[in-house]
Amino acid sequence: MQVIQTVAEMKKVRRDLKGTVGFVPTMGYLHEGHLTLVRRSREANDFTVVSIFVNPTQFGPGEDFDRYPRDYPRDFAMLDLGHTDYVFLPPPGEMYPSSYNTWVEVLQITDRLEGAIRPGHFRGVATVVAKLFNIVAPTCTYFGQKDVQQCLVIKKMIQDLNMNLEMVIVPTVRESDGLAMSSRNIYLSPDERRQAPVLFQSLMTARKMWLEGEKDAEKLRQAMVDLILQMPLGNIEYVSIADALTLRELAKAEPPAVVSLAVKFGRTRLIDNMLLE
Amino acid sequence: MQVIQTVAEMKKVRRDLKGTVGFVPTMGYLHEGHLTLVRRSREANDFTVVSIFVNPTQFGPGEDFDRYPRDYPRDFAMLDLGHTDYVFLPPPGEMYPSSYNTWVEVLQITDRLEGAIRPGHFRGVATVVAKLFNIVAPTCTYFGQKDVQQCLVIKKMIQDLNMNLEMVIVPTVRESDGLAMSSRNIYLSPDERRQAPVLFQSLMTARKMWLEGEKDAEKLRQAMVDLILQMPLGNIEYVSIADALTLRELAKAEPPAVVSLAVKFGRTRLIDNMLLE
Repeated sequence: MQVIQTVAEMKKVRRDLKGTVGFVPTMGYLHEGHLTLVRRSREANDFTVVSIFVNPTQFGPGEDFDRYPRDYPRDFAMLDLGHTDYVFLPPPGEMYPSSYNTWVEVLQITDRLEGAIRPGHFRGVATVVAKLFNIVAPTCTYFGQKDVQQCLVIKKMIQDLNMNLEMVIVPTVRESDGLAMSSRNIYLSPDERRQAPVLFQSLMTARKMWLEGEKDAEKLRQAMVDLILQMPLGNIEYVSIADALTLRELAKAEPPAVVSLAVKFGRTRLIDNMLLE
Repeated sequence: MQVIQTVAEMKKVRRDLKGTVGFVPTMGYLHEGHLTLVRRSREANDFTVVSIFVNPTQFGPGEDFDRYPRDYPRDFAMLDLGHTDYVFLPPPGEMYPSSYNTWVEVLQITDRLEGAIRPGHFRGVATVVAKLFNIVAPTCTYFGQKDVQQCLVIKKMIQDLNMNLEMVIVPTVRESDGLAMSSRNIYLSPDERRQAPVLFQSLMTARKMWLEGEKDAEKLRQAMVDLILQMPLGNIEYVSIADALTLRELAKAEPPAVVSLAVKFGRTRLIDNMLLE
């Protein structure tokens, strides 16, 4: 495994690669979800590049940029065990020099859910991902379904800007009790951690009702809210039943639909989602 | 010369090209300025692609999108004579399907001059050029110095988004009386056409004063304005003496500086510029 620490070197290494390149962009502090993306990339490509970059422009003021967990030695060890070919660590000063001023924005779909609560978040995501795509020039990129809105934003950007790569969305990897894997789970206190699987449980409840014929989105939503309210440490930010392409809220849960939610435990925001299909 | 009419075909043709590709994006109704860009591209690259696309998103409401001159047979004949390899005619419905929603914006430098008068113009320019760069994947792209602010915006976008191409800015090509070549010159009435070289004359006046030692930007500007006011059909939109990198207005015309101006003759906006170096 080779660690690459400048944009110029990454571009040079890439130019010399003959074959397909799979790319997994991450913010580090890796978990089994990331490693699943790496495996998917390795299965389908000649080379796999993983980037680790805690992207400042996707964090709002007061969010957790400064305390976002970082542990490069641990990440490197995990990626090396996973047979990653290249780890790219873009230097912040090269990614965003002081004169930096260009932004990629996907409109409309970014107004809802995460975008409504975190204004500017998806502008930062789309911009850094566009930059990384240009630097790494992958054949295919791998994202986790857990961040469903992010997946839709990146997919739309690739399509609208005619970018030359495929995107594969990989199912969410979960802990044994159903909690979606996330670097932010480390923030949870033991009590919060015990209650956090309620996100998954509420999704499963909605899915079960839906499979049994309940299509009224408000009823599905209410059942989820009722369940979450039984966990005293959780504060609901949203519970959404939306069109799985546009994220417009649905009155009737016709497929393709996606149930998604954000719940805060203390200062920690957890998100999760499930497709109704 | 091969004419390519779909995005998919352009991408396919490009994938099969071995060697360097020069790219000249245009809005058609070509003139000697465009052909100079083509020649520059041919000198330095194995293949040359010229796109012709009157890009709707860079025109504001009430601007000349509908009446912008179009003459494909004439353009094809000129490009064929100029030994262009590929002409790419992107279909508007493929470039901007009804669900289109992704935008590239270069901030700050686009607040001034053309950007101040034509809000949204450079967002449209940056977006369509980013798309064309992804579709054509050129080694090098060629732009005319006449649109100096456009050149700076594209250069900044390439740099900020880590795009994989070079950009060459080619000096403005002029009619024998100094009028900068432009597809919009066709709009001028005979009387307007006779007065239009005042843009070039005023630039030459400022340049001469500057070479003789006058560095006071206000005095240079005033001399230009005085000259233009002698032409009764011209209406000045701006006369600017600015830093050639940031386009910030200068009090003292230290190099690198750029003198630029926009003057309206009837409904026709003419722009021109000259570097002070």
